[in-house]
Amino acid sequence: MMKWWGWGDINKTFPIEDKPNLWPWIKKTISISENNKITEPVKREEIILSPANINDDFLNSVKQFLKVEQISSSEDDRLLHSYGKSYADLFYVRKGVVKKSPDIVLYPSSHDEVENIIKYAHQFNVCVIPFGGGTNIVGGVDPRDQTVTEKGPRCVVSLDMRNMNKLISIDPQSQTAVIQAGALGPKLEKDLSDKGWALGHFPDSFEYSTLGGWLATRSAGMQSDAYGKIEDMLVSLKMVTPTGTIVTRTTPASSAGPDINRLIVGSEGILGVITEATMRIHKSPEVKDYRGYLFPNFEKGVEAIRECIDKNWLPSMIRFQDEGETQLAFNLKSPKKGIESIVQKQLKRILSVTGYSRPCIMVVGFEGDAKQVQIIANEATKILKKHRAFSLGKGIGKTWSKDKFNVPYLRDYIMDFGVMVDVAETAAVWSKLLNVHKKTIEEMNKYFKSHGDGSGYIGCHISHTYKTGACLYFTYAAKQIVGKEMEQYYGYKKLITDTFMKNGATLTHHHAVGYEHSPWMESEISQTGIKALKGVKNALDPKNILNPGKVFPVEEEMRLGVFGIDAPEVVNQSKSRIKKRSGQTSRNLHEDSIG
Amino acid sequence: MMKWWGWGDINKTFPIEDKPNLWPWIKKTISISENNKITEPVKREEIILSPANINDDFLNSVKQFLKVEQISSSEDDRLLHSYGKSYADLFYVRKGVVKKSPDIVLYPSSHDEVENIIKYAHQFNVCVIPFGGGTNIVGGVDPRDQTVTEKGPRCVVSLDMRNMNKLISIDPQSQTAVIQAGALGPKLEKDLSDKGWALGHFPDSFEYSTLGGWLATRSAGMQSDAYGKIEDMLVSLKMVTPTGTIVTRTTPASSAGPDINRLIVGSEGILGVITEATMRIHKSPEVKDYRGYLFPNFEKGVEAIRECIDKNWLPSMIRFQDEGETQLAFNLKSPKKGIESIVQKQLKRILSVTGYSRPCIMVVGFEGDAKQVQIIANEATKILKKHRAFSLGKGIGKTWSKDKFNVPYLRDYIMDFGVMVDVAETAAVWSKLLNVHKKTIEEMNKYFKSHGDGSGYIGCHISHTYKTGACLYFTYAAKQIVGKEMEQYYGYKKLITDTFMKNGATLTHHHAVGYEHSPWMESEISQTGIKALKGVKNALDPKNILNPGKVFPVEEEMRLGVFGIDAPEVVNQSKSRIKKRSGQTSRNLHEDSIG
Repeated sequence: MMKWWGWGDINKTFPIEDKPNLWPWIKKTISISENNKITEPVKREEIILSPANINDDFLNSVKQFLKVEQISSSEDDRLLHSYGKSYADLFYVRKGVVKKSPDIVLYPSSHDEVENIIKYAHQFNVCVIPFGGGTNIVGGVDPRDQTVTEKGPRCVVSLDMRNMNKLISIDPQSQTAVIQAGALGPKLEKDLSDKGWALGHFPDSFEYSTLGGWLATRSAGMQSDAYGKIEDMLVSLKMVTPTGTIVTRTTPASSAGPDINRLIVGSEGILGVITEATMRIHKSPEVKDYRGYLFPNFEKGVEAIRECIDKNWLPSMIRFQDEGETQLAFNLKSPKKGIESIVQKQLKRILSVTGYSRPCIMVVGFEGDAKQVQIIANEATKILKKHRAFSLGKGIGKTWSKDKFNVPYLRDYIMDFGVMVDVAETAAVWSKLLNVHKKTIEEMNKYFKSHGDGSGYIGCHISHTYKTGACLYFTYAAKQIVGKEMEQYYGYKKLITDTFMKNGATLTHHHAVGYEHSPWMESEISQTGIKALKGVKNALDPKNILNPGKVFPVEEEMRLGVFGIDAPEVVNQSKSRIKKRSGQTSRNLHEDSIG
Repeated sequence: MMKWWGWGDINKTFPIEDKPNLWPWIKKTISISENNKITEPVKREEIILSPANINDDFLNSVKQFLKVEQISSSEDDRLLHSYGKSYADLFYVRKGVVKKSPDIVLYPSSHDEVENIIKYAHQFNVCVIPFGGGTNIVGGVDPRDQTVTEKGPRCVVSLDMRNMNKLISIDPQSQTAVIQAGALGPKLEKDLSDKGWALGHFPDSFEYSTLGGWLATRSAGMQSDAYGKIEDMLVSLKMVTPTGTIVTRTTPASSAGPDINRLIVGSEGILGVITEATMRIHKSPEVKDYRGYLFPNFEKGVEAIRECIDKNWLPSMIRFQDEGETQLAFNLKSPKKGIESIVQKQLKRILSVTGYSRPCIMVVGFEGDAKQVQIIANEATKILKKHRAFSLGKGIGKTWSKDKFNVPYLRDYIMDFGVMVDVAETAAVWSKLLNVHKKTIEEMNKYFKSHGDGSGYIGCHISHTYKTGACLYFTYAAKQIVGKEMEQYYGYKKLITDTFMKNGATLTHHHAVGYEHSPWMESEISQTGIKALKGVKNALDPKNILNPGKVFPVEEEMRLGVFGIDAPEVVNQSKSRIKKRSGQTSRNLHEDSIG
């Protein structure tokens, strides 16, 4: 069960106890003076949703073929499906503000059931939001329909795909697997690895996100360097639309018109519901070899990566942290004891006198058969060392592997202390990359200085590399400006996204559009590009029942320049809630309410 | 200057003189008894086109910004733009039958000129067919508009992109180049290699096809194994549509909605005119190492390729010929002399007694830096040899490289002797590939036996390999059935394509759809997939001025089941032409008419 008020499993929190340096470092960096949690989530029972707006014709129709347990209008279910996991989503829901809930949550168990649900939704003009793991952080699953019919607002259904989670078949010769779209990352990899195979797609959200969600958002994972983004792994799929089902052909390649698979990947539920997909898989690697290196600065590490690409000796994974994020990484580490601690201190001293004054950590991974890994690792590390990579050994790789899916939990911890924390990612070609990085850090630091109390944190890592460029993944945080939290949040989002776009980077490399990125879509794909996509949308979903208010900029919001920002009363309402409940910890609140 | 009646340069023919075994082998295989050419092309002056149907409003508008030499309604220009290079195209044009000509040929020299041309075409309801090199073999450039307005049929413009052939810029850091869409293969590679770079896209049509054409048809080249299909090399592009210009962003990857690049690639001129593209390039390889091997049969070679994929030791290029095509290859070789000839005879004997009774040639290429090529070649050839690859040395690789772009000329030579010769290609996942190959050969051989004089040739090679499968490229030939040539041609096309589809292969791997493949589009991408594409088409080109009658099946033709087959009088008219001119050679005819 996922938290309604934060990231991940309700029984898990960020393991901060074994990282004694972390909290003091965060407090110093973001100027947090208190030790008290000040903005914990409200109790579950404080939240009262508006009554469900049920379309009886629709409900009676789906009751004909769905079981009782596949249909829910319970407040708990509706609440959990009201938001994704963006900072804005969490900010509101923690305050008990639910902007709009789905009226019904359905849990289909087969492709045919999805076809029938969509058929009736189309017939009775009911909105449907496909819901995978609900981890989207750009507003992709939030109900946003504003259509008002003769009978009032339309009924909104959240279509939770969790029951469609099976590995249907494996074709070992062709190295493909047919998988249902609702399969969560861990289940999917487990099912495959039981038979000696792997998909190899590990986004940060891996534990709680689904294949269908990955496809709908053009996701990238930690091993995309080796296996490609999700669209590169896709062979064929089925998608149910209000006017029919698209089935593409299982073929290694084709030239039969534009690639329909690629029209569906990234469509974020506005064109249809992906029910299953045939994916490229690979044999579970014989060897996994992860290593850490320290570079004297960001530029040197980028040079090293580029030479690996040039020479075509590429690790399966490269993750390269800039100076800011390296500081965070240093403080995320458990402290060394005894001899280890002395060695570490010596190391620090040596590095500081030899020009590693702005140290940057790179973790590289090599996977495959033993011999190949040996050859490639040998050649690649020669290149890294040429660019002054200082080996940190295999330990750091292991530390990183262990903690890699825990980082999203840290946000919940920090938000309790009244901190705004967000991420923004982009990609740029190599000739623009360093400039995008530099400008972004500069602009954000300027903004920190001129807003709030003047402090703030920004760090970045290269999370995926390509021949032509790489993905830059920024994390930033500042103290919340009380009463203006959303203006603050969108202020930062606007600044960082504008900086990406102005300097030639892309709007988003793997977080997709939702509604939070929609204002920049015209800059990204041009007005005529939007026209092309709207042509598809109108042809497949003429009543706009599927995930309305996403991907395309909403004109009214664009005109006002306030997309996503609610009227002042919403923020004020939130403020009043805070006052009621000071002093409690988020964990207590949460246990009280859910347990 | 290209031949109007056949393949390639007007001054080039297939070099048959140095291949003394070829013609006897062809004659035997297809049962050609005569040595006389019997179906040469008509003389140029025998062809009289219908008068150009000029839209004066449009013509006067484009005269405002185009120079005199950029506008032509000459018969020679119109004739050259009336057809692509499919067997059907050549069959008709050789008989002097021109089904429909463009009325005007325009030669734009800039993106802005294309924008203006399309603007006026949209305004005055004039059809536009983008024309790259004109090498399409599925009817992609043939005028097919059937719309009749109040003022009669619409004026049809062929938009010849040849003047837009510049390499605009290179970004060495990002390994990308911006290139105009009209650049022919050799010009483009020359411009790049002068600066130390390569695109590495070598379709069979390389010498006469353009970047824009490759993109519009999702082309694949001989080195696609290493560098990907053309869509994999594409970073961004500009496409002019009747309702605006699409400009995509130069970024290594993105998740900002569905990938617009991929919506444009494969659109075959029905959505817009591609004017320039940013392409991934790579450094000119230090080493090019091509080698030939002989496998005892087709299955063994496929096993070997699959193990290379499994182990991830992959050549840059694999071309693997089945038994039928290996026979052709043996006969394409110039004979060995002296010692070489004795060795070759011994070799044949040894192979036949050791189980190479159905020998199949594989050419593999390794490109890159010297060290890497050495390592990969070493590992890959170990795998090949494990599967009984018998080395033919590097000579065969060179022979093949030398002749690789000459094969299309052979068709013209053979057609002079009254032979139908065509190609069909597909792709299938590995688990289906051998069955697709076997069924296709069986079905076609059955058809040979039961039609015409019972003889015929079919051979196949694997031209591109992927992790999940490969492309099968068939070449087949049979004597023309006089008076029923088109029924015969479409009979074979229908049989072979139905066989592909029935056995799970794709409609086309790299030849695209045009009109000849359009009847199978619904089986390939589903009815709803077609609906999606029509949505884009209607949004971007509401008057259907761009390359009408392509990609989508034409309902009337589907109903009649006679797509592409003309009324009997057309064939009869063709027959009458033949009678008039027996005895001349095509080369003479051609020189007479063009020279």
